[in-house]
Amino acid sequence: MSKPFVFEKPAGMRDTLPAFYQKNEDIKNRIKQEMESWGYQFIQTPTLEYHDTVGEASAILDQQLFKLLDMEGKTLVLRPDMTAPIARVVSSSMKHVAYPLRLAYSSPVFRAQQREGGRPAEFEQVGIELIGEGTASAEAEALALMSEVFKKSGIAAFTVAVGHIGFVQELLSDILGNDDRAGDLLRYLNEKNYVGYTSHVKKLPLSSIDTQRLLKLLDLRGGIEVLDEASSLNPNRRGQQTLQELKDLYHLLEDYDAAQNIVFDFTLFSHMSYYTGIVFEGYGAGIGAPIASGGRYDDLLSRFDRKAPAIGFAIRMDYFVEALGKKSDDTKRQCILYTNERRKEALKLARNKRSEGKRVVMQNLTGVKNIDEFSKRFDDVHYLIGTQQGEDFS
Amino acid sequence: MSKPFVFEKPAGMRDTLPAFYQKNEDIKNRIKQEMESWGYQFIQTPTLEYHDTVGEASAILDQQLFKLLDMEGKTLVLRPDMTAPIARVVSSSMKHVAYPLRLAYSSPVFRAQQREGGRPAEFEQVGIELIGEGTASAEAEALALMSEVFKKSGIAAFTVAVGHIGFVQELLSDILGNDDRAGDLLRYLNEKNYVGYTSHVKKLPLSSIDTQRLLKLLDLRGGIEVLDEASSLNPNRRGQQTLQELKDLYHLLEDYDAAQNIVFDFTLFSHMSYYTGIVFEGYGAGIGAPIASGGRYDDLLSRFDRKAPAIGFAIRMDYFVEALGKKSDDTKRQCILYTNERRKEALKLARNKRSEGKRVVMQNLTGVKNIDEFSKRFDDVHYLIGTQQGEDFS
Repeated sequence: MSKPFVFEKPAGMRDTLPAFYQKNEDIKNRIKQEMESWGYQFIQTPTLEYHDTVGEASAILDQQLFKLLDMEGKTLVLRPDMTAPIARVVSSSMKHVAYPLRLAYSSPVFRAQQREGGRPAEFEQVGIELIGEGTASAEAEALALMSEVFKKSGIAAFTVAVGHIGFVQELLSDILGNDDRAGDLLRYLNEKNYVGYTSHVKKLPLSSIDTQRLLKLLDLRGGIEVLDEASSLNPNRRGQQTLQELKDLYHLLEDYDAAQNIVFDFTLFSHMSYYTGIVFEGYGAGIGAPIASGGRYDDLLSRFDRKAPAIGFAIRMDYFVEALGKKSDDTKRQCILYTNERRKEALKLARNKRSEGKRVVMQNLTGVKNIDEFSKRFDDVHYLIGTQQGEDFS
Repeated sequence: MSKPFVFEKPAGMRDTLPAFYQKNEDIKNRIKQEMESWGYQFIQTPTLEYHDTVGEASAILDQQLFKLLDMEGKTLVLRPDMTAPIARVVSSSMKHVAYPLRLAYSSPVFRAQQREGGRPAEFEQVGIELIGEGTASAEAEALALMSEVFKKSGIAAFTVAVGHIGFVQELLSDILGNDDRAGDLLRYLNEKNYVGYTSHVKKLPLSSIDTQRLLKLLDLRGGIEVLDEASSLNPNRRGQQTLQELKDLYHLLEDYDAAQNIVFDFTLFSHMSYYTGIVFEGYGAGIGAPIASGGRYDDLLSRFDRKAPAIGFAIRMDYFVEALGKKSDDTKRQCILYTNERRKEALKLARNKRSEGKRVVMQNLTGVKNIDEFSKRFDDVHYLIGTQQGEDFS
């Protein structure tokens, strides 16, 4: 007796069928190749981690974690991101390898959905972490590599929005006096709810100058000129220094030939609480959500007792593939339909074609119920049927 | 304050560092390529499945399943194998695609360990399923493909042991009268505990002829001559038919040039309870456990309401890589160490080398604390330091 939901998958879980699998794989391989050519080395971490280590450090909301108990009653989580697990690896199995470290990954991550909203609860990320370097060179490298991945993959039109967590937090603290009151506004920014942000700002008991400063923040989106506009908002020494660093970064990116697609955006505020400096998001034409995102996280490694500045980004494969649009994929298959008498002929033909790199199904005619249905799946069908040697395949 | 086990991983979980990752990846890609060239199409299924669907069908002992509850209180499992999930896909998302279907996968699977014994609880399988064909051609294809994967991957010495669940079950039932009593002996076979099997057989209240038949089963291991020896053990019509089918299969494998490594072994009995016909295991020199295993499972698809005979096998990547032994891997990296004045030069050099397929790290000298430690990680280091243009890299 079949259970009522014998075909069902858990909420947010998806199957990847051949055509999409192949396309995703081809694109992923191109991305990985680019990251490798910049000297990044791929590693893999386990799907399950302790909640008390990676789960807590991961900066994903607790209710989004898939949790289970191990035999000893300790709580495990399905990894919600790869940055925290890599921090763990760098501080344990790789603790003897000197900084800076350039690591990469290609892995599914897991985030439980509060309710079934069609959003995937498991999705694949390909990303890099550059750990142990706090210089502008590291930031330029991360951003330039992301742009290069976009270009090499064939994403024609893309934008990379660059913000700075430190600058924004400082501005809000400066005006609002404490971090708690800043929290509400940061939440609006994180949700990209600018209407909510505006109406909240207007309700705050502030001088009209400070109200204007907070509202002006929303306009700080655009080219390098935005950095000058930002200058008046936060005239203290640290704010000015951050803006100078961003200018320097922009010029470094010009050297990399990667400045054209950069847009500064001081409203950018990630939900990943471990970011400490620049944050950035990559957008492809026609996709509302970022197809890649990253930032500087200079405090995370110290949680794992191997203090270091670090920067990284992750490409979200499902959105990235969507941004590339529909393209013909490399899944052409031929079929050799044969009868027993001509099996050896069929074998020889298949072997020849496979050695030429073709994908060839060999199918005994007796194993097929509906020849028409079966055949139409292939780009080419060779019939080796009966005793007559009708086909030349030398 | 650091938690006591901030660096720890859950029992049976492993990190894969760059050298092994690269080697595993290279070998996996070669395996996948061979499977694709035989027309198998890769798919991916979710990590989490319902316990009531895939968990129950998967034939893995319940205490080996990693379980968790979803928001609605339904029990989920981390997939313990890929055969049951693929049966679900074939019966749902792919139910309109006519049989026979040739599908493949490359995925981690999860099996909880009762106690920490150093055995991995998460490991990667690459495998194929040929669904909807019950002919000898399907069996020959699965076995020939497995042999071809071994050969193409460079596993010089390997053995493929072929047994038959049906033959053995029938022999035991014939002698012992019912399936319950056969169960104990099958358990000994599954554990490859032949001493236990022998002593158990000797305790059974059987005629000396039947005792000898049961003990003789253990000798049924070897070349094609074993099929004749087996003939006297189970002279009924169905037993004889099975042996004839195995002979035919052997001759088909000769056509595939894949018979040399075949060994018949009637003691082979898998713990995967869904197998119904032939079962087989691939062994590489020096590795005690099978590096690949598979069999015919003609009843599983009917549990998902799309009845079909089927056959498949899975390669266990960690053992397979081990069987291949240590080989130099393709992880050579160069490094360009530069100072700010010569950044543009460094960029140009890196771009040229990367376009030649080299893996090149660009590293600002100011970001490195210990140059000696850092440099020794690379096969080649170029210094672009100071204002002097000392190196020719045109």
